[in-house]
Amino acid sequence: MTTPDTQTEAAADAPRPEARAPRGFMDRRARDLAAERRILARVSEVYERYGFEALDTGALEYADALGKFLPDADRPNEGVFALQDDDDQWMALRYDLTAPLARFVAQNREGLTKPFRRYAYGPVWRNEKPGPGRFREFTQCDADTVGSARPEADAEIIAMAAEGLAAAGLPEGGYVLRINNRRLLNGLLDRAGVADEGQKLAVLRAVDKLDRLGPEGVRLLLGEGRKDESGAFTRGAGLSAAAAESVLAFTAAGAGDRAETLRRIAEVIGGSAEGDAGLEELAGIDRALAGMGVGADRAVFDPSVVRGLEYYTGAVFEAELRLEILDEKGQPARFGSVGGGGRYDDLIARFTGERTPATGFSFGVSRLAAALRAAGRDSGREARGPVVVIAFSPNDMEAYFGVAAELRAAGIAAEVYLGASGMKAQMKYADRRLSPAAVILGGDEIAAGTVTVKDLDLGRALASDVTDNAAWRAERPGQQTVPRDQLVGVVRRILGEAQ
Amino acid sequence: MTTPDTQTEAAADAPRPEARAPRGFMDRRARDLAAERRILARVSEVYERYGFEALDTGALEYADALGKFLPDADRPNEGVFALQDDDDQWMALRYDLTAPLARFVAQNREGLTKPFRRYAYGPVWRNEKPGPGRFREFTQCDADTVGSARPEADAEIIAMAAEGLAAAGLPEGGYVLRINNRRLLNGLLDRAGVADEGQKLAVLRAVDKLDRLGPEGVRLLLGEGRKDESGAFTRGAGLSAAAAESVLAFTAAGAGDRAETLRRIAEVIGGSAEGDAGLEELAGIDRALAGMGVGADRAVFDPSVVRGLEYYTGAVFEAELRLEILDEKGQPARFGSVGGGGRYDDLIARFTGERTPATGFSFGVSRLAAALRAAGRDSGREARGPVVVIAFSPNDMEAYFGVAAELRAAGIAAEVYLGASGMKAQMKYADRRLSPAAVILGGDEIAAGTVTVKDLDLGRALASDVTDNAAWRAERPGQQTVPRDQLVGVVRRILGEAQ
Repeated sequence: MTTPDTQTEAAADAPRPEARAPRGFMDRRARDLAAERRILARVSEVYERYGFEALDTGALEYADALGKFLPDADRPNEGVFALQDDDDQWMALRYDLTAPLARFVAQNREGLTKPFRRYAYGPVWRNEKPGPGRFREFTQCDADTVGSARPEADAEIIAMAAEGLAAAGLPEGGYVLRINNRRLLNGLLDRAGVADEGQKLAVLRAVDKLDRLGPEGVRLLLGEGRKDESGAFTRGAGLSAAAAESVLAFTAAGAGDRAETLRRIAEVIGGSAEGDAGLEELAGIDRALAGMGVGADRAVFDPSVVRGLEYYTGAVFEAELRLEILDEKGQPARFGSVGGGGRYDDLIARFTGERTPATGFSFGVSRLAAALRAAGRDSGREARGPVVVIAFSPNDMEAYFGVAAELRAAGIAAEVYLGASGMKAQMKYADRRLSPAAVILGGDEIAAGTVTVKDLDLGRALASDVTDNAAWRAERPGQQTVPRDQLVGVVRRILGEAQ
Repeated sequence: MTTPDTQTEAAADAPRPEARAPRGFMDRRARDLAAERRILARVSEVYERYGFEALDTGALEYADALGKFLPDADRPNEGVFALQDDDDQWMALRYDLTAPLARFVAQNREGLTKPFRRYAYGPVWRNEKPGPGRFREFTQCDADTVGSARPEADAEIIAMAAEGLAAAGLPEGGYVLRINNRRLLNGLLDRAGVADEGQKLAVLRAVDKLDRLGPEGVRLLLGEGRKDESGAFTRGAGLSAAAAESVLAFTAAGAGDRAETLRRIAEVIGGSAEGDAGLEELAGIDRALAGMGVGADRAVFDPSVVRGLEYYTGAVFEAELRLEILDEKGQPARFGSVGGGGRYDDLIARFTGERTPATGFSFGVSRLAAALRAAGRDSGREARGPVVVIAFSPNDMEAYFGVAAELRAAGIAAEVYLGASGMKAQMKYADRRLSPAAVILGGDEIAAGTVTVKDLDLGRALASDVTDNAAWRAERPGQQTVPRDQLVGVVRRILGEAQ
């Protein structure tokens, strides 16, 4: 053991690493964390009331088990953080919570009671180029039902997602679940004689651009192709004009009323076995949603919804925010999707070779928290600091800690100042921590059996419109000296708590 | 889009990965998770009452920022999961929560109000050989104060750790914090003329084996060395016989009473500046603990505590379980340490070159949960399943979902059976899920405006000592048919809840 001084010298001599978080990784402090934890606690409560059980799998999976099923990405095998284990097997950090669920279900398929309902939350990692609002680590919250092919399983996920979003803080009318079914478009394309997989994917990709390009742009992409403003040409899906029109009519069939939408979809796609099956599934979802009291204010059918190209096999859904949100310039901003999901009946078959029906919903926790904050719906208080007990003399530390312990025992956050600074800097410290009060226990107070409590909120409020600084200092507003046994009551009054 | 059947065939043709979690990684289900979440929620509440704010850093850090400060490991640079970023920088999964804290503090040192108190919890990863009870991913919960050199900062961490362990479920007398100070042994060795760093480390390593080898074995390791039962020889620290005796006397100076222990330590080490400084620090810790009402039943001084060899610079502490725990054979088992910590004033200087005082405590969440379970102090209930609404007919799904929604709105977990099986299998499903009740809503009940509720707990209890199976079946114990609007009340009675 060296003495402290020589150790510091040694540290100073060594080459010093730069203190920085990896690109695209975030440090989150009290206020952001509190908002996310509140969302997760409330959503968990809702999901458990729906009979979903918590499951937590590890951060790393074997790469072959993760597979290449990353939704919403064309080149899924890139984009993970991979490393080789000491037995040479490749592992990777999970990029979502569904792939580990599929692995878990396949691994435990003998002992698992089905349908198996589970929810999970935690970080996922994507090795992509980070950017503003785009991180390489973020928190997802998922719920999935494995082992039920019934459309009611989709409906339950949708109803639960809606209730979860409401519990998280979204107001009535602040969000809507938009629901579609892959089998509808498949049926429509079957009827139009489109059998090629690549062509079907190109149709889905074109429809997915409706928001950005509008019907005119999508019509070009469904046909021969489209040249954008820069002159770059995107090859189209190569549909006939008639087929392209029927696809566009299909995507426009959404109406507020769910039954009306089903009628309109039937008109444009009716006829194929696959399309009829898709319609029947949506009708089952509608009935179950009605049974759960979920009306068109919270869940609508919308044939323009696409999601995860090669991933979903039936119903797909997207949670869209409809909050009034203003951007930094005070302009109304569109926040768009906070989550989505659907039916993915082929994922578990990767392991087992047996088709296993599954459906689920996933949302981004930080994204929802950011939306709530932007909409002024962040129910969290400002992160308050603790009551600070001012430390005058090392000899009276025991008394200071007695005060802090008494406050804590009463459920009030408190700390003794433990830095090396004087009174003035200590008051500044309490102020920077947003402490509600400071407790002053000088030699006089200890001798007299009293304690002085300073209301820092009041002090801050008064200081902001004080004109006569000297008079204000002399009066010491918001400061009172009381008998020691009244300490907790006085602090509670300052905190605005019932005694 | 292919049809479902051809997709399944395609999946069957592809090579199938084996569904398995990586070695040393755990899947945790409802009950274990509930216990860990309860511990974290309660400990967080205590830590926030002490004025510690939550902080969450990312899973990955740059390898040079993580450094080689893994405590309690002789070869720390091994043992991490490392990978190279696309800009060739090496990153690694954090192996604890302290190294990321040091990086965070150094990175934000301009804007951070000090002393900075933070707590954090989350998974950490160690790339070591897994074994029984030894995982490569596990959850830690840490609290640290950065920027205070005062011994009271150590005392506060110790008091908070004790209160946190109690909040987590440990009973009075079920644990004790054992406290030591590195500077004491340094002072003793200074006085004995031992100046060599390697020799001092060898002394610490020898003392660390007291538990396993007893004073006789340690005496050999402090001197020339020791031959174990297999004949292997471990070279000793090479102390003189007198110096070895004083080290042993020092490690034996612990007494129940803290003041008495300080007197006994002073007797064996008194005299060196470093030893006196260590004694003064322990005296400060004692006074602050007394101020917070933490007596010798919860925190004692124990000079035999070692911990993290090249890591700690002052106070060190260890949380030892003293619960009556029985192993699988019903024999009393020693659970030992669930956590520990100490003062590490040199860690942040790796980045900044400036000594920054810091002290903290860390415990293993799964380990504490396992100890509580082994001691029968797991306050968690058995993970109950939801009320199951039996699904007879696809045509009545809307009614079933109405019942489930009504129960959920009353705060009761409920689900509609969504598998493909008949009545008998559905009752078995409810039983395997540990559901408290099943709701039966056949065509008759729907027509009559009634509902049948079956008490599954009662059914299970009766079934276990029934002799006349036929009579029991005819009577249908625990099953009652009531008007539809009495549903919630009946289920609440079964759950044993107040209405």
